Amino acid sequence: MKNNCRKENIFNNLNNKINAIIIKNNVEPFIDNNFFYFTGLDEGIFEGCCAILFPQKKSELIITELEYESSKKSTENIKIFNNKKKYEELIIEFLSSSKFIGLNFNNLLYKDYINFKKLLPNSKFINISEEINKLRIIKDNNEIKKIRNACNIVDKVMAKIPDIIYKEITENQLAAEINFLMQKMGAKKPAFTTISSFGQNSAEPHYSHGNVKLKKGDFILCDFGANFMRYNSDITRTFVFGEPNDKQRSMHKTIVNAQNIAFNELMAEVKAKDIHKKVFSFIEESKFKSLFIHSTGHSIGLNVHDVGEGLSSDSEILLKENMVFTIEPGIYLPKFGGVRIEDDIIIKKDGYELLTNANRNLITI
Amino acid sequence: MKNNCRKENIFNNLNNKINAIIIKNNVEPFIDNNFFYFTGLDEGIFEGCCAILFPQKKSELIITELEYESSKKSTENIKIFNNKKKYEELIIEFLSSSKFIGLNFNNLLYKDYINFKKLLPNSKFINISEEINKLRIIKDNNEIKKIRNACNIVDKVMAKIPDIIYKEITENQLAAEINFLMQKMGAKKPAFTTISSFGQNSAEPHYSHGNVKLKKGDFILCDFGANFMRYNSDITRTFVFGEPNDKQRSMHKTIVNAQNIAFNELMAEVKAKDIHKKVFSFIEESKFKSLFIHSTGHSIGLNVHDVGEGLSSDSEILLKENMVFTIEPGIYLPKFGGVRIEDDIIIKKDGYELLTNANRNLITI
Repeated sequence: MKNNCRKENIFNNLNNKINAIIIKNNVEPFIDNNFFYFTGLDEGIFEGCCAILFPQKKSELIITELEYESSKKSTENIKIFNNKKKYEELIIEFLSSSKFIGLNFNNLLYKDYINFKKLLPNSKFINISEEINKLRIIKDNNEIKKIRNACNIVDKVMAKIPDIIYKEITENQLAAEINFLMQKMGAKKPAFTTISSFGQNSAEPHYSHGNVKLKKGDFILCDFGANFMRYNSDITRTFVFGEPNDKQRSMHKTIVNAQNIAFNELMAEVKAKDIHKKVFSFIEESKFKSLFIHSTGHSIGLNVHDVGEGLSSDSEILLKENMVFTIEPGIYLPKFGGVRIEDDIIIKKDGYELLTNANRNLITI
Repeated sequence: MKNNCRKENIFNNLNNKINAIIIKNNVEPFIDNNFFYFTGLDEGIFEGCCAILFPQKKSELIITELEYESSKKSTENIKIFNNKKKYEELIIEFLSSSKFIGLNFNNLLYKDYINFKKLLPNSKFINISEEINKLRIIKDNNEIKKIRNACNIVDKVMAKIPDIIYKEITENQLAAEINFLMQKMGAKKPAFTTISSFGQNSAEPHYSHGNVKLKKGDFILCDFGANFMRYNSDITRTFVFGEPNDKQRSMHKTIVNAQNIAFNELMAEVKAKDIHKKVFSFIEESKFKSLFIHSTGHSIGLNVHDVGEGLSSDSEILLKENMVFTIEPGIYLPKFGGVRIEDDIIIKKDGYELLTNANRNLITI
């Protein structure tokens, strides 16, 4: 599927009731990846830039001088601005005759909305976030290829972790090694702040890493992802340094089983929330009741938590072929530690395919 | 200055006309660092969480179960939600009697604004972005300490680059080495995607790195930053691999001089745009006319481009003591290459202090 197709698809999904779509990218960290989705550009940041999509003609990319070189890879029309006045003139020039304009309310800053209303007083703005998300949650071949690459990188890095670990390595050092390996293997950058938490820190799902030294008996929870050509992977494994005790073994086994329960349910036309419910019930009925405190997984792609969808109790989606999710059950026992195992999968008609394949057994180092 | 003070200051700046402030954090990448500014929390991501600030009583942190452990470091009141319904009930519970509520329109997603309007139909929402930015652009001692640490890390890494470089190293490999060194020296993560561009790629200001091998005579442009306890640094140096030709020397000298022109003007009570104008005019009058295509610098702190302010032609700010900026003139000659030199400085009453101190001469490797 070419980028052109993406544009055609969004206008088709909107039943061609929209005269134009504006994708407004703001400054870091408020980057709307839809800008890259619809333009296909893969270098540059394009802060403060807009892509204006029309159903029957070329898109107009309104970009800063700073991104001119990067924008040349696009086959769309390029217009440069170097101050606010020029930017606003271009918006008016291209859009003042568009009555119905689609905007992505989910990723649009309120101040940008106010500004569009001011510049285009005769236009009506329609929220098209849902239609964009419906499109983006199903990955095309080009996207799947990039996600596979991102997954291969984290598999190779995860396999090397037992060789990296030594007594008294700090969480910070381990994170540095993981990120270094990912980049050497082709990642542009980590997909998110790498988590390498030891011992009881692993009980904080979003603790990343600190100056803590590894001790015998500690859990080592490693959760990281690679960003490859703007697409992400996301993997987690939990190791034990030294001989695991019974509780550690039991926690790990529960999570392996919980993940398998999800795997067994994955296929097109299944409700996402039903999978979460089964995993949740399984853990609630184990001796680790009430310790599974997040969703079973999330869509992944251009964003790590892609298009705001996942396998959670709130979700209303049906799984479809070529959706890509993480499956990541975890349990967190305060003051003791946590276990999480996470893999990336792609939904198939009759099941799923694992995109990450690092060893899922309890590895002791 | 403690975090309490930050809360007091914002209500004072608003003349106490506001009954409450909501800082709504969304999901990555739509992270509003004001959440961390006002709560002082330094671990966790707090996706989808809210800080509700009141002028005369403790703040209420409305957070997901996932962040409970991380939130315990706060002395504010903590309320947990694990679904949308509970989140909305808490918003109504704490805010339905607040008539005037401050919101940060600059970093708030439009969909969150719509939701607050729905949940709190009797409240009036006031944009307080400007008042927040006025506060955040002046750094307190606690912030300056963290920024100094972030600057020391990049200085040490920049000094090591000549030892890392070898013939045929790729841009990707160099980026991996830079990021590894930053993390080993204490950075939590790179402040942004590291730029390590060779030869004519250095003419694209936002090109990051690819699979390109270093050749004799290439420019090597390295632009990177360290994130230390959520605060950022940002440094750039441009090296030459082998003997520089006359044009390379001349480009480099022009940029050193341009940076010095900025340095000479920096002090409290000077207009930011006047500094940019002087640097811009200097380059326009050199033989590199029209090749300086961005602003002279930006405020830096919790965000790399902090509070949307900088030394640009659009800026309306007066420099004040304890503002922190980057100073980064650059020139970009398409198909040939670019030179940029960037340092972080803090404004003093009668001048400035350099926070980054890596060698600014033309280093040939």
